[in-house]
Parts: sequence; C-alpha cells; structure tokens
Amino acid sequence: MSKISTKPPSGMRDFLPADLLRRKHVVGVIEEVYRQHGFAPLETPSIENLSTLLGKYGDEGDQLMYRLLHRRDKLTRATEGARDEGRAAEESELADQGLRYDLTVPLARVVAQYGQLPKFFKRYQIQPVWRADRPGRGRFREFYQCDVDITGTTSQLAEAEVLSAVCTALSRLGFEDFEVKLNHRELLRAMIRCSGIAAELESTALVAVDKLDKIGPDGVAKELAERGISSDSATRLLETISLEGEDNAARLEALAATVDEAGREAIAGLRELLDLAQSSPAGPRLRVDPTLARGLSYYTGPIFEAAVSDLAGSIGGGGRYDGLVGMFGKQEVPAVGFSLGLERILVVMEERGMYPELGAGPELLLCWMDVPERAPLELATRLRAQGLRVEVYPEAAKLKKQLTYANSPGVDAPWAGILGKDELAAGELSLKHMQSGEQQRVAFDAVAKAVRA
Amino acid sequence: MSKISTKPPSGMRDFLPADLLRRKHVVGVIEEVYRQHGFAPLETPSIENLSTLLGKYGDEGDQLMYRLLHRRDKLTRATEGARDEGRAAEESELADQGLRYDLTVPLARVVAQYGQLPKFFKRYQIQPVWRADRPGRGRFREFYQCDVDITGTTSQLAEAEVLSAVCTALSRLGFEDFEVKLNHRELLRAMIRCSGIAAELESTALVAVDKLDKIGPDGVAKELAERGISSDSATRLLETISLEGEDNAARLEALAATVDEAGREAIAGLRELLDLAQSSPAGPRLRVDPTLARGLSYYTGPIFEAAVSDLAGSIGGGGRYDGLVGMFGKQEVPAVGFSLGLERILVVMEERGMYPELGAGPELLLCWMDVPERAPLELATRLRAQGLRVEVYPEAAKLKKQLTYANSPGVDAPWAGILGKDELAAGELSLKHMQSGEQQRVAFDAVAKAVRA
Repeated sequence: MSKISTKPPSGMRDFLPADLLRRKHVVGVIEEVYRQHGFAPLETPSIENLSTLLGKYGDEGDQLMYRLLHRRDKLTRATEGARDEGRAAEESELADQGLRYDLTVPLARVVAQYGQLPKFFKRYQIQPVWRADRPGRGRFREFYQCDVDITGTTSQLAEAEVLSAVCTALSRLGFEDFEVKLNHRELLRAMIRCSGIAAELESTALVAVDKLDKIGPDGVAKELAERGISSDSATRLLETISLEGEDNAARLEALAATVDEAGREAIAGLRELLDLAQSSPAGPRLRVDPTLARGLSYYTGPIFEAAVSDLAGSIGGGGRYDGLVGMFGKQEVPAVGFSLGLERILVVMEERGMYPELGAGPELLLCWMDVPERAPLELATRLRAQGLRVEVYPEAAKLKKQLTYANSPGVDAPWAGILGKDELAAGELSLKHMQSGEQQRVAFDAVAKAVRA
Repeated sequence: MSKISTKPPSGMRDFLPADLLRRKHVVGVIEEVYRQHGFAPLETPSIENLSTLLGKYGDEGDQLMYRLLHRRDKLTRATEGARDEGRAAEESELADQGLRYDLTVPLARVVAQYGQLPKFFKRYQIQPVWRADRPGRGRFREFYQCDVDITGTTSQLAEAEVLSAVCTALSRLGFEDFEVKLNHRELLRAMIRCSGIAAELESTALVAVDKLDKIGPDGVAKELAERGISSDSATRLLETISLEGEDNAARLEALAATVDEAGREAIAGLRELLDLAQSSPAGPRLRVDPTLARGLSYYTGPIFEAAVSDLAGSIGGGGRYDGLVGMFGKQEVPAVGFSLGLERILVVMEERGMYPELGAGPELLLCWMDVPERAPLELATRLRAQGLRVEVYPEAAKLKKQLTYANSPGVDAPWAGILGKDELAAGELSLKHMQSGEQQRVAFDAVAKAVRA
C-alpha cells in the first residue's frame, strides 16, 4: 500500500468544524446585513465558458485562470491534431471552460441572459472563486467573495447603498477602525493624461500605479519607465497622486487644479457621492485616495477599497462598471458593486480575537451501560425532538472511557447524559455538567430544559 | 461587438433569487437535523490532487472526473515533450488536479490527514461536486450533496444514527412516502459467488446488477453475458436477487437459504441493524432489497438508497466503507455514511408543491419624491436598524413608476413606503400595503412594528 499525500493541494484548505463554524458565523452576519439592504441572493456555476471569462480581468487575470481539460474525443482531437501537424498542442485547444475567477463577470452574464430580472437587480452572492496565484498570508487559490451589486441605474444612490451595506456588515462584525478608500477611474485617467502620458499607455500606467502600496513610489517610477513612459511624465503623475489634504474636500480641491474638464467632472461625482453617503453608515468611513487604482480592468467610475490598519492590502473593494454587461454583446446595463474578501476578514478577526465562542460538538453526549443498544438510540430521538444536539457514544464501553471521550478535543460536550439500568427503569437520565462535575437525575422529557437552564 | 453566449455551460445552472431561497430553505432544514444528531460541519476544497481522486470510484467515475489543465511551464513541458517525441500528449501529462467528485473520498483524506479529530468523527458536509455526466432531468454536472458520516467505529449504532439523521431530515422536509432500500455488499458478493461466478468477475457482475432498475432483468442478463458470465450463472443470480417475501424478515430468510456462510453473516448484520433502527425514525422506512448494488466501488458492508415513488432513481444513498481511509496508506479507519442529493429532493418538492412561501425581494420598497436624495437613504438606515429588509428606489421618478416597480416580478414588495415633503417634515412615512392598497401614516420609528403587525 503506497502512501498518497493526504494534504490538500497547494493554496487549498480543509475547514475542520471549529474553523468552519467561525466562517459560517461571519458569512451569516454579512448575509443578514445584505438582505436588510434589500439585496436578494444569487448563485452561479463554478464552471463558466472561457469565452465568458477571458478578456475581462486584464492579462494577469487571464493567466491566473483555472482551465478545465477537454475530455475524451475532444481531447484526442486536440492532442492528435497537434501531433499530426508536428507541433505542441495549444492551451486554447485543450480547454474551453474554466473556473469562476470572480463573482462580477458571472453577474454581468446573468444580467445579459435573463429578461425577467427586476429593472434594478440588487443581488448578493457569497461563493468561492479560484485564482492560480502564488499562495501567501490570507491569500489562497480558492477563496470566498461576498459581493453586493446593483445593476440598472447610473444613480449614485446605488453607490451609496452598496457602501452602506458593506460598512454596516463590517461594523456588525465588530470592526471599528476600517476605512474605505475612494477614487474614480475617470479621475485617474485624467491624472494620467494630464501628466503627458499618451492615451495608448493609459492602461499600462494604471497597472503600475495599482502597485504603489506594494512597491512604493520608486518602484512605480521604475515600472512606468519599463512600460515606456518618460521620467518627466512619471514624476508628474506621482506628484499628482501623492497630493495630500487634511480632509476629502481639500484633497479633491487640490486634485481639481491639476486635471482637465473630464477629471473635474469625475471630481464632481465624487463630491456628490461623499455628500450622499453622509446619510448612511458609510459616511465617516470614506477617504478620498488618489493613489487607489484597483487591478481589474472593467471599472469605469468610482472605485472603492476597504482596509484596516493592521493588514497590508485590502479586505474588499469594488466600483462602478458600466461597460461589463454590454461586453456580452447585448444591451448596455450600468452597474456598481463591492466585494468583501472573506479570508482577509477572517485573518484579522482571528488575530484580534473577535470571534464569539462557538461550540462545534454536541450539547450532550449520551453515555450508556448495561442497557440494550436500542435504548440510547430511542432516548436520543426523544432528546433531539426537544431541540438538543445529541451524540450517542457508538460502542459498548466503560463509563469512564465514554466520559473521557465527552471531554476530548473536537467533542467538548458541555453535558454528558448517563443511561444505565436504573435510569432506564425510572425514565430518567443522569445529567452531568462536565465543567463543574455536578450531576442530577432528570426525567427524559425535562432534559432540554435542564441543559438550557 | 460580437455576441458571446450568456447561457451557463451545459449541465451548469444559475440560481436566481426565488429558486435559491428554496434551495437555502431545504439545506437549512437538513443542516439543522444533522446538527441535532451531533454531526459537526466540514468543508473541503473543490480542487483535489488526482492521486486522491482516481481509483476510488470505479472506471466510470475516473472517466467522468473534471481535470484541471496544467499552466505555464508545466503545460509547455508536457505539450512540447510530446511534440519532441512525435506523439500526442497524454491526459495524465496534462493534469494532476481535478474537481471533487463526491464528499466521501475527501472525508477519507481528511481523516487520514488530521490526528486531532475526535475518535468518532461525526461530520456533515454540504457542498457541490462535479461529474462530467450526460445532463438529464434532475441530473447536472455541478450538484450538491448533503453528507453525514461517522468514522472510527464498526458498531452498527453508527449505521442506525446515520439512517436516523437522513430519515428525520426527509420527514422534516415534508416527505411522507419515502423508503430506504437496504442491502449488504458481502451478501451481494455471496449471491454472486453462489451463482457460480468466478471471483475475478465479481466486480464486473456488480456493475451489471447495479443497472437493474434502469435496464431491467433482460438488460442485466445481456450485460452479464457481455461481461463473460455464463447464462446459467446469470440466470441463477437474477433468480436470487429477485427473491421476494412479504416483509424484511421473510426476504432475509429466503436469501439465507441461497448463500454461503459469509453471506449468512452479512444477513445477521442486516438483522441486527433492522432491530436497532426500530428505535429511531428510520425503522419503518427500511426495506431489504437484494437488487440494490450501488455504483461506487468503495463500499464494504451495508448499503442504502432512499427513494420516493414518483422519481425514478434515488434521492440519496450510502453505506459502510471500511477500506477507504486505509487506501491513503496510513491507518485503517472504519466508516459509514449517507449522501442526500439536493437536486433530486428539490425536483420532487417542486413537482409536489412542498415549498413554503419565501419572498426574495425586500419587505418594503422606499419610494420618495420632492425630498433631497439623502432623505430616503437616511430613513432606510433607520428602518434597517429596526430589522426590516428595505430597498430604496434608486432614481428620481414619478411615484406611479416607483409603485409599479414595487409590484414588478422579482421585487414583489409587500409594502411600499412613500416619503414626500409632508412626511419628511412630520417624521412619518406613508405606508402602503400593496395587496389591499390600504395606506396609513406611521412615525419613522414605528414602521417595522406596523409592517410586522
């Protein structure tokens, strides 16, 4: 018998019960807040056509995509076709489906596909996505996103609602120190343009700017040079995005002086959004940050990123993407959304000890001795009908062994019930509180009441 | 702008809100029952190493597995290596990871990997699995399984607990007419052996028998012949598995007369299990069925399959698999489990109208006119703090248009709140019950109370 590795693949994780219960707690809070904001749930398949996925996220996204290998005849045709032509098979011949890379592109596909959706489709979606990225702290190859989006309107009330939902969720989870950075893609483009960078280098400049918090201004300057941008333009751009000001209004005013008309229009939009957001829990969290770029290529308007002080990188982000639904070749539908990253949130909550106590095991372990095997099963059925979470010790064993098991890691039953001959005859259970060691006899029908007391 | 298909790939599905809420309802009920039975949640990654997955499910399973194409250098090495040798690249060179095919093999891997699990690991797991099967009614390529398993004991109390959990869940969902077919792999093997079929043809005979309810006895006879089994043996085997009897005891007695000692031992095990199960909600559901074979190759003891009368095929199945954990080359750990198929359950519940009413949209749509945009946002924050699910109409529009939207499909808000200049000044909302058309003025702080009344 040869040994097979029993570890999950690199970047993948098993969630054992105690860990999973914490994840479920966090997802539950986020979901409740999203629903209170009038968002309805959506789920899309893990597998999408590559024609849906490719070309939406930028080059890096396309490279990190998981592709599903063709099967049977389709695979044979591809590999034998390449052989017959004396060449290596191409990636594009070997796969035409891949794993979901985010939840936004699938939403855009859904909006393009289904005519019966509400005009303003407010949906939330909490599902895993897959990226074949280098694994790191709080960064995995399978991870959950918790998205809220509103499609069908260009009104910035939609931005305000999305930000309200996300900020309320973070507050409800116990975060007190987060901020949401705010910028605008049109403002960024204006800053790039007004630094003297040619239109065709705009996207590549954006990719470099997006790395500012990772590689610093010198790193960005170097990247810009490598991407063919003059050092003069690079210096001007870095100066502009580094403009400071004591509050949002001051920062926007300073920026307004450096950009053109289109840039000033974007600034007016941000001012309106800041004003609107004052009426929601998002208001005090927003901070205009001209360095914020966001990696994904589909954003067209305001962009956001939520951060806490003790975690490098963000715990979520989003923005307006009015062109994405239209990329499916049908109608243009404006949209705005925000995605919270579950694992980033969990990392911080773990480090800060923000979780409530959540017991993974049963409330009561039912121990038994000198009674027929049927007896504990019968009693367990009755206790479960009372709403208790009950585990039956599955084998005949000495009482001491059963009680030791009740206390073992991963079980940690707060109560043990002991069913012996006497108890069975009396219709009572000996109920033992594991921590105090106190024991009492309780009628079968009164066990849940005693446990909950 | 070329059109990209916006349908999900074949066998994949989008779950729009109303549909998803029904799925969540069903999952919620199953999860609650599983937890009451003392099972704790586990989740494993979607992506597993192929070394973990292959060789556990039989040939058909291996063929239906989704494989993930290598990326970058690894892919280049494989395709160029094949080219350099003048041959077609092999499937096994192009992928070494795949998508989860069921939840049982990942559980076995987890049990082999983690030393800190409880000795009796009672876990439930509700996640999607992927099989590249031909799509059909209630059969998809991505579908959810709802598994309960107990590892670490050969005691049939474990079988009884698993069956109790599953039967309680089905009852709680409103099923009144299901039965759980019961057989035993060792009994099946004895039946095959005692029909004069050679040991090396045992597995292939089992695969043929498993198709009985799909292709009938003539079909099975044909398959057995194709698999090299004499018509004499085939006839004898078909006779044995077709043995009838008015109840479980009678059927087992008839079978006992046709098999050898090992077969009679399996029968004794089934008798013990039937007796134990009498003490749980599973008791009246169990029906000994000698034709039940179950497709997967890893079962070693009792096997189960749940069915309802109006759906061909099963709504779930399971059994004992004492050898699977040991296949990972470490310790042998006995185990038993059951997997409910979510989509099969949903198909039947849908057809029978077994769902409760579940509103996908907001409880209250907040309409507004002649007030600043901030006003409805501010009020929505207050109403949400009261626990209401509130959507704000996101654009300035005529009241009639807003109310029409409240009534539109997918929104179906039972209440509309109207915030005008008068209302804002008075700190009150005009609350309209959409179905009756009745309207009343309610103080901002009393809206939730009025809606819930």
